Amino acid sequence: MAPINIGIMGVGTVGKGTIEVLTKNQLEIQKKLGKALNIFMVACKNIENAKEVCPADTIITDDAFDIVQHPEIDIVVELIGGSTIARDLVLQAIENGKHVVTANKKLLAEYGNEIFAAAEANQVTVKFEAAVAGGIPIIKVLREGLAANNIQWIAGIINGTSNFILTQMKDKGEDFELALEQAQQLGYAEADPTFDVEGHDAGHKITIMAALAFGIPIDFSHCYLEGISHLQSKDIAYANELGYQVKLLGITKKTDEGIELRVHPTLIPEDRLIASVNGVMNAVYVNSDMLGKSLYYGAGAGSLPTASAVTADLIDLSRELINQVKYPVPHLSYLSSEVREQPFVSINEIRSSYYLRMAVRDQLGVLSELTKIFVKHDVSIEVMIQKSDFKEGIAEIIILTHSTIENNIKNVIAQMESLDAIVGSVTMIRMESFYK
Amino acid sequence: MAPINIGIMGVGTVGKGTIEVLTKNQLEIQKKLGKALNIFMVACKNIENAKEVCPADTIITDDAFDIVQHPEIDIVVELIGGSTIARDLVLQAIENGKHVVTANKKLLAEYGNEIFAAAEANQVTVKFEAAVAGGIPIIKVLREGLAANNIQWIAGIINGTSNFILTQMKDKGEDFELALEQAQQLGYAEADPTFDVEGHDAGHKITIMAALAFGIPIDFSHCYLEGISHLQSKDIAYANELGYQVKLLGITKKTDEGIELRVHPTLIPEDRLIASVNGVMNAVYVNSDMLGKSLYYGAGAGSLPTASAVTADLIDLSRELINQVKYPVPHLSYLSSEVREQPFVSINEIRSSYYLRMAVRDQLGVLSELTKIFVKHDVSIEVMIQKSDFKEGIAEIIILTHSTIENNIKNVIAQMESLDAIVGSVTMIRMESFYK
Repeated sequence: MAPINIGIMGVGTVGKGTIEVLTKNQLEIQKKLGKALNIFMVACKNIENAKEVCPADTIITDDAFDIVQHPEIDIVVELIGGSTIARDLVLQAIENGKHVVTANKKLLAEYGNEIFAAAEANQVTVKFEAAVAGGIPIIKVLREGLAANNIQWIAGIINGTSNFILTQMKDKGEDFELALEQAQQLGYAEADPTFDVEGHDAGHKITIMAALAFGIPIDFSHCYLEGISHLQSKDIAYANELGYQVKLLGITKKTDEGIELRVHPTLIPEDRLIASVNGVMNAVYVNSDMLGKSLYYGAGAGSLPTASAVTADLIDLSRELINQVKYPVPHLSYLSSEVREQPFVSINEIRSSYYLRMAVRDQLGVLSELTKIFVKHDVSIEVMIQKSDFKEGIAEIIILTHSTIENNIKNVIAQMESLDAIVGSVTMIRMESFYK
Repeated sequence: MAPINIGIMGVGTVGKGTIEVLTKNQLEIQKKLGKALNIFMVACKNIENAKEVCPADTIITDDAFDIVQHPEIDIVVELIGGSTIARDLVLQAIENGKHVVTANKKLLAEYGNEIFAAAEANQVTVKFEAAVAGGIPIIKVLREGLAANNIQWIAGIINGTSNFILTQMKDKGEDFELALEQAQQLGYAEADPTFDVEGHDAGHKITIMAALAFGIPIDFSHCYLEGISHLQSKDIAYANELGYQVKLLGITKKTDEGIELRVHPTLIPEDRLIASVNGVMNAVYVNSDMLGKSLYYGAGAGSLPTASAVTADLIDLSRELINQVKYPVPHLSYLSSEVREQPFVSINEIRSSYYLRMAVRDQLGVLSELTKIFVKHDVSIEVMIQKSDFKEGIAEIIILTHSTIENNIKNVIAQMESLDAIVGSVTMIRMESFYK
């Protein structure tokens, strides 16, 4: 039987991993699929690099457009990254009637609607398991495993770099900069870490999951992004003392007011399973109406874990090719004719509880003055504790609030910061209990 | 467009849940599938019971054989349980060319090979997501999400009743009998709890997963079963003090010696995510060559969670019916022509480390005598601690061993129990670190 011919574009970390998975587990895959997956052609700027990792009979090119045009290739794998050339390549592959597998979250967050529409028009499928949470099969879980459910919210630790840094800050009491340096030395963070630590990467991933969960178009422009570079290790330590862990979460929720879509550091009660996800590991926590809460944990990045997801997509598509049918699951979970825009809730209108830290002067009546501000803005305090004795007349106060509208907390903070008794600015971190 | 006609056999907990999911989320499912799932016929001994929960136009019968024979039914859902009538019904449905969805782990653990062979011969599909770990889509994850991987081991908390009891014993220091009573009062345990607390249910589930993971036939006869009824709450407390949690695990591993397949209480280091899975919740922990370790957590039982899995299977099968193709994923992950028997490792030949507790008399040289027994049987001790002062001349000793062959530890125990210095029998609990 003729094998399925694969063309791989890009031989970086994930490209090398995919070639390794397809080579090492070739026989096992064939025992499940009944056909071989053949690495027919590989595109890489550096041909010598590609030769080192490819089977001897693989055609190697330095022009990825050779792959999207080649008549013998059944499935094109886009592992170049970015959203310029990758977009051109994917759209051309689709036009040429080829199925596409991509690990490119940026491409899908920015151009997913265009790409999926083109795929439908050309009756091909774009699969993207590796684009969200690396090797964790979360796309399959959301689209197929939970297909009988209305999803209510998703919260994910979906950026391994940030989670590694936060774990270091917690375990070693290190500041952000030092933890980042260690992440860079270990290869967990890029030289320019902005994309990871400022929440862009997590934002791309939660935006894609929001579309799958709620039947809405992909719309990254409505994703609120706040990273971890401003976090202080003492806030992590205080949170720990109060029974919370601090995680960078991508969160999306369907509420009566609309869709919430946001990335930010979050205090989580330590008894929730997701609070124990440490180091570079990822986890996606889902609440849905029939199953209730479920969690999916694993490696969110890395060569072989990501390649595991790429290859699972290749196997799925190959099954359809063998059976000569179109892949039967809609790209965004809902039939494209049923995808509808829904209003987004702006960050100022979300409901959350909050962790606040501030430095106060040792003045008579300062605590009662603070309390009055909360009452005035209709925010109720769950915990207020003084973290330290007064040193040079100044002490730190931590306040945890009950759930309120973010606008209210921002008004509280503005008014507190205007007080003479408050030194400097108030630190605010959102909290999620996940009890509902 | 004509709907997909479903016949549901059994209106117990899961049957009621399935009717509720199909009714409440009818529109959402249609937005994903493009077709309605119609509850065409329901079989229940008590027709009045069924009427209360079924849509008005559902045909209700008290004879499930009406369903497997009905020409207009596309998919038969078996929710009767047991392996006598359920087996007849499923085999007849298959012979009549109907796809089957079942939540019946006992049926599949005992007759799965026969049922899947019959399904292949009749070109129909039997789906069984709900048979393992309730609503967690672990069958889909193992068969499709991790299809590119060689699975090395699976360890699961896959019996919610036992996990609830163990959590009670830990949190409240209760003995097994009292914790079981509470589980019964809350509806988490049956009047006769044997099936759950003695490991049969977990054994059925891990046996099914072993077949999926390793490409072997389903063979429950080789599953070693040891339940939790003999556990004492003080062992759980001692384990906690030493940094471990005690869980009833279903474990299957592929080793150089063959397949290990076993259910027993297990000490797990508390920093492993699965150690934090409490109450009635389930989790399946998987190690595979490309993805590495991943974990899947959620409700392992209950009406709506289990129905979520049943309905996901219905949606998958409906997609194939709509596209008029046979479901392309082999029942047991590997093509039936590639399924091969592999040797099983008997429980005496497994490798594990061990927790031992014994009562020793205050005699000169007893500890050195114990140590010599370990040396003689080539077992090395990781920790040996005296848990209490001598009371009436007797104290408790806890020993944690390094990894060894189970036969060795059994020889150690036998020899220790023959010593005059050891009072009564030695308590042994296996340990898993999951570091590899």
